[in-house]
Amino acid sequence: MVDFNDNSHRRYNILTGEWVLVSPHRTKRPWQGKEEDVVVEERPSYDPSCYLCPGNERAGGHTNENYKEPWSFVNDFAALKNDVPQAKFKSGLLKAESESGICKVVCFSPDHSLTLPIMEVSNIEKVIALWQHEFRELGKKTDINHVQIFENKGAIMGCSNPHPHGQIWAQRTIPQEVSKKNKQLREYWNNNKSSLLGDYIKEELELKERLIVETEFFVALVPYWAVWPYEVMIAPKKQHRNILTLSEEERLDYAKIIKAVTIKYDNLFKTSFPYSSGIHQAPTDGQDWDSWHFHMSFYPPLLRSATVKKFMVGYEMFATPQRDITAEMAAKTLRNLADTHYTKK
Amino acid sequence: MVDFNDNSHRRYNILTGEWVLVSPHRTKRPWQGKEEDVVVEERPSYDPSCYLCPGNERAGGHTNENYKEPWSFVNDFAALKNDVPQAKFKSGLLKAESESGICKVVCFSPDHSLTLPIMEVSNIEKVIALWQHEFRELGKKTDINHVQIFENKGAIMGCSNPHPHGQIWAQRTIPQEVSKKNKQLREYWNNNKSSLLGDYIKEELELKERLIVETEFFVALVPYWAVWPYEVMIAPKKQHRNILTLSEEERLDYAKIIKAVTIKYDNLFKTSFPYSSGIHQAPTDGQDWDSWHFHMSFYPPLLRSATVKKFMVGYEMFATPQRDITAEMAAKTLRNLADTHYTKK
Ligand SMILES: O=P(O)(O)O[C@H]1O[C@H](CO)[C@@H](O)[C@H](O)[C@H]1O
Ligand SMILES: O=P(O)(O)O[C@H]1O[C@H](CO)[C@@H](O)[C@H](O)[C@H]1O
Repeated sequence: MVDFNDNSHRRYNILTGEWVLVSPHRTKRPWQGKEEDVVVEERPSYDPSCYLCPGNERAGGHTNENYKEPWSFVNDFAALKNDVPQAKFKSGLLKAESESGICKVVCFSPDHSLTLPIMEVSNIEKVIALWQHEFRELGKKTDINHVQIFENKGAIMGCSNPHPHGQIWAQRTIPQEVSKKNKQLREYWNNNKSSLLGDYIKEELELKERLIVETEFFVALVPYWAVWPYEVMIAPKKQHRNILTLSEEERLDYAKIIKAVTIKYDNLFKTSFPYSSGIHQAPTDGQDWDSWHFHMSFYPPLLRSATVKKFMVGYEMFATPQRDITAEMAAKTLRNLADTHYTKK
Repeated sequence: MVDFNDNSHRRYNILTGEWVLVSPHRTKRPWQGKEEDVVVEERPSYDPSCYLCPGNERAGGHTNENYKEPWSFVNDFAALKNDVPQAKFKSGLLKAESESGICKVVCFSPDHSLTLPIMEVSNIEKVIALWQHEFRELGKKTDINHVQIFENKGAIMGCSNPHPHGQIWAQRTIPQEVSKKNKQLREYWNNNKSSLLGDYIKEELELKERLIVETEFFVALVPYWAVWPYEVMIAPKKQHRNILTLSEEERLDYAKIIKAVTIKYDNLFKTSFPYSSGIHQAPTDGQDWDSWHFHMSFYPPLLRSATVKKFMVGYEMFATPQRDITAEMAAKTLRNLADTHYTKK
């Protein structure tokens, strides 16, 4: 048997039907390339120049509410607008159609200095409650068929403001990454009458080698087919199509595991760990999505240290995503990190 | 009719079957986020500490040839190795298989100070000749079914050494991005008995609004479905499955258009313009690839200036690639730039 801990191989992503190239032997490669800036920042709880702090003015002349709890508003520079008339264009080999939607900003806390790992669990729960509210209200609209909740954390992830916040882009069509999962989940459901992700989670709970944290209702693991070096997935053990059907107990548990994972992230390189995270849920197009099982993924760019990231460039753009450390190595490292935030000692 | 120059829409990529979200109205968005370092470097023609300069020692104790022309060697830290035994692994929902291949480094010139836009056309032609040689020799091997030629240019694109060079990763399986194109090209070929890309190029040559440069045998354009802000595709007007069938005249012309495009790139923000480029060609798996039409794409990250790039993050990772400026705006800007390098005035 070939040892996949030491030999290049590809792994299959059951949720997308795609492959990732894994080159474990390549971890020995020296690095002489780009080093990112180290972000050592102490932020005040209120920053008068921050356009997300309560009571401040935003671009476009709007004024923020004096919010005390997680708060959302429509993005002033929305990539998607809801007043776009429906139109399709086709001419020869050119094909386009109008797209409409709503983009919102979700402030996680009025406190400018916080991030998810250092927020109280009860306050993270309020963020989840706001996500639920937004998902429900946006999803209800007839011209919104998919709601993408996500967070870009850190300047390296294109985040232009350190105030703790995420975004929601809701739109008419089903985005590409979700379509892939629709297909895979439905196919498995039709053949097995069970949740593909649910069955996968059962398998991982037995094998244990890719687990990071397990709570009563949730699990956090490095998926077998992870692309980013320290990619993590959080998912409920029980099948929920979306976040709306979580019980209060489950929601609290979800908040706990988000805190646990992001604490480990910060502890990894003793830095405020950058990532993009997103929740994939059943489309809101009214179709039968019995097969769906929501999950939240974290795609963090850092590889070796707080300043050296993994570049998804030439080969990865033109051929296939590629990683060096295996999912099992990454999981072991994360699992063994302390459960308390490194700044709280 | 909805004006797509001012309204969000999605465009279809005929080569991959995927969509890109375009939000032209979003160009008005202010930017307060990350600024990249400006790279103002004067490099010597020979750098004693560069592991790619002629005669120097590389990591791993190898010594470079005293090369005078473009020169290639096997990557010392190859992600793909050819001594990996074939094996497949399946257990429950986990699926993997070993992958083998060869990774090479292609030095474009012995001169450490050069880049493609400031190299002589005759020397770019020699680089193409070396690509042809490598593609032929690697492609011949029975366990190599795909050969990916690419370049990561600039530290921002994960390039760890400014010496002008690219890479080749050749492997047993067909990478994901190429599989998508195989499918689309073949389907069109079966239905129309002509080259999908060839027919698209004819259409663009008539419409003209996305053209950047046209030479006798080649065209450079911003594809209708471009994802990166200043993405460009170079392709031969006549259908060639791969670079091996180019006549000497065509090869010279290919060198000219590479120089022309990269000069415009450098002129855009008066900087050595970073990008990842890659040549997609027919697989070397011995199958019938009559439908293929090779093309070279450039994916450059810069958006607004030499220091502000486009981030493909949260929404783009979880949903669909998104761009602000339209392909037509980008093409117009590039087309109108000078044909002479900004440093040569
Ligand atoms: O091989 P290099 O130049 O050291 O590495 C660079 O290109 C590779 C191929 O795109 C990537 O996998 C690496 O992340 C990147 O840093
Ligand atoms: O909306 P923001 O935070 O200004 O912008 C950031 O997130 C968006 C959604 O992933 C991306 O399209 C932008 O490139 C990125 O800079």
